[in-house]
Amino acid sequence: MTDVIDLPVKDRFHLPEGVTYLDGNSLGVLPRGAAARAAQVIEHDWGNELIRAWNSCDWMDLPRRVGDRVAGLIGAPAGTVTMGDTLSVKVFQALSAAVEMRPDRRVILSDAGNFPSDLYMADGLVRHLGRDHSVVTPAPEDVLAAIDESVAVVMLTEVDYRTGRRHDVGAITEAAHAAGAVMIWDLAHSAGALPVDVAGCNCEFAVGCTYKYLNGGPGAPAFIYVRPDLADSIDPVLQGWLGHAAPFEMARDYRPAPGVERMRVGTPPVLQLAVLEAALDAWEGVSLESLRAASVALSERFITEVEARCPSLTLASPRDAGARGSQVSFAHPEGFAIMQALIARGVIGDFRAPDILRFGFTPLYLDEGDVVRAAEVLEEIMVTEAWRAAEYQVRGRVT
Amino acid sequence: MTDVIDLPVKDRFHLPEGVTYLDGNSLGVLPRGAAARAAQVIEHDWGNELIRAWNSCDWMDLPRRVGDRVAGLIGAPAGTVTMGDTLSVKVFQALSAAVEMRPDRRVILSDAGNFPSDLYMADGLVRHLGRDHSVVTPAPEDVLAAIDESVAVVMLTEVDYRTGRRHDVGAITEAAHAAGAVMIWDLAHSAGALPVDVAGCNCEFAVGCTYKYLNGGPGAPAFIYVRPDLADSIDPVLQGWLGHAAPFEMARDYRPAPGVERMRVGTPPVLQLAVLEAALDAWEGVSLESLRAASVALSERFITEVEARCPSLTLASPRDAGARGSQVSFAHPEGFAIMQALIARGVIGDFRAPDILRFGFTPLYLDEGDVVRAAEVLEEIMVTEAWRAAEYQVRGRVT
Repeated sequence: MTDVIDLPVKDRFHLPEGVTYLDGNSLGVLPRGAAARAAQVIEHDWGNELIRAWNSCDWMDLPRRVGDRVAGLIGAPAGTVTMGDTLSVKVFQALSAAVEMRPDRRVILSDAGNFPSDLYMADGLVRHLGRDHSVVTPAPEDVLAAIDESVAVVMLTEVDYRTGRRHDVGAITEAAHAAGAVMIWDLAHSAGALPVDVAGCNCEFAVGCTYKYLNGGPGAPAFIYVRPDLADSIDPVLQGWLGHAAPFEMARDYRPAPGVERMRVGTPPVLQLAVLEAALDAWEGVSLESLRAASVALSERFITEVEARCPSLTLASPRDAGARGSQVSFAHPEGFAIMQALIARGVIGDFRAPDILRFGFTPLYLDEGDVVRAAEVLEEIMVTEAWRAAEYQVRGRVT
Repeated sequence: MTDVIDLPVKDRFHLPEGVTYLDGNSLGVLPRGAAARAAQVIEHDWGNELIRAWNSCDWMDLPRRVGDRVAGLIGAPAGTVTMGDTLSVKVFQALSAAVEMRPDRRVILSDAGNFPSDLYMADGLVRHLGRDHSVVTPAPEDVLAAIDESVAVVMLTEVDYRTGRRHDVGAITEAAHAAGAVMIWDLAHSAGALPVDVAGCNCEFAVGCTYKYLNGGPGAPAFIYVRPDLADSIDPVLQGWLGHAAPFEMARDYRPAPGVERMRVGTPPVLQLAVLEAALDAWEGVSLESLRAASVALSERFITEVEARCPSLTLASPRDAGARGSQVSFAHPEGFAIMQALIARGVIGDFRAPDILRFGFTPLYLDEGDVVRAAEVLEEIMVTEAWRAAEYQVRGRVT
């Protein structure tokens, strides 16, 4: 990293004309170097090096190399993060390992605001384990009180995908440990959105995706962190050959690789990993503290503007900036149609059922002008009731 | 599909100068349209459409659309194949479902020639299920005799990754069903290598990868087929949100999607899927029967040439072409060094421990001239003992 630079660094990204993009919390924008890197991997590495590229172009090492880059953004030491699969699969791996670390306990504690896929994966794991575990999901604000000595694992997403509400990572991890539970943090809406201190909080596992605030592109692979003192004792449920200590021995018996490498499963998604690696160059010189300051400033400005201009929208995120991630949500019964009208006018956020308008703030490529423009367009839609137009009412597949 | 065309169709691929590539059974070569499609997905879809591309560029439908293309190459009806994850993960999904279809049985029957990752995944599943299943792995030729009423699942790879030996899919599936067992075929070395008739053999599950004979590129996603009469009753172990009947309802409870779609897990690897989709264009007009005829001709010619020129190499594949897939292996105690010397001379095959030189025949882009050249270079290496050079003896990471 060079000296800290000022945000935004819009010139590091391709931003389409006429678009104000407040959906980087769902899919980050295209970093400038990504297309060239994809072309290189496809035309040179694959096209000319072919199978040799696993060594000559260091494909085999991509999960570790990219993992180290992600580690640097979530406060994890080098060598403790690996990349691959999807976030749902990484949740499954972490949870399986965590449950087995507390064989005498039966509660997996999450919350009702967790992303559904995390809970589905937990439900599936429990049912197929043939055990009598329960997946308990109190309201987010009741999690701390629900941690007791029945809890095997506390599994939470730091920032609520719907409301942007942010858990107190330090306090919850401490409470989990005090009760003897294992802590898993899902950092889907944290990595690249705000400072994260995985090592400092001492959680056992952290997982996350890379296509949101890390701008890795559609379908970019997930990451998993395992606390280094534990990694060598994890017994992986998904024991794929690339998590083997010596995959090319092709031995009959699985022998897990040292450390977090055992959380690798199958052949890595080389193309997506290479694009992600190029995308991470956009973080050069960026301080996460500056990013957070910018995120708070943008979010606060947006709330102020929208509340002043659009009284029928209700803030659905915590008012206290410290209790939010890097998104702001407003509720409105016609949220779906309002969001369609916004998108039609080039202001892109997204809708989450039943009534949430979601706006993500990505200070790498947003400035106050973007935020004010978005509020202006939203005001126009509300004042003119443009959202009543038939074309905005039709629900197709949504994202 | 248009009229059947003659093979090879070398002009559909980028083949590097000076290389004779007999490793398409490990990583297929670059199809001509792949780079342009990647550029389109990155620069247009991601860059300009951003999150809207899930709908406007049909990203969400990619696993089904590409699955239908793969279905056409493995004798499966449209709508019975979906794409995603890695082959190891798809093995885990199929096996978990299969085991639960025979709750009163305790044997998972595979063979000692199966790809290690398939066996590792089975071992992991069994151990973590907390059940008393055994993963039994007789020699490949003893599988048929080992099928009895203790067997819950027969899980085999049709073509042996080391020797190219091919199982009798029809006979084994019939025997499995006669004994009341569930049949899973791993088609990693079959799809795009020879005619496959998944529906005709009536197996319950088939899985495979797409970076070998389907030329999907490094890390291309896997496929899974579920027999349509069963798909609606599968209870997925990896119940990710994109296998949900209505993922964007974000409901608390998982409700599996109809059919094979429930085998989707997380966000699809859009970039890799799009490249794979472009790669599958290379099959336009290709008859799998012609492909097989060409594969047999190339393989037979190679065996004849090598046996005539290199008497110290021992054929490690079945001599009967009908009992082989689309690869030929030779054994030699110095196999590793010999393969390094070959690769240094532009003839690319690969090595599999302990002593196997592997050569894959991919009639889409190989002709007899390639095969004869490879045999000539191999002869030169054996006659001159060029493989004794120090640089070929050093084992680094291998692929």
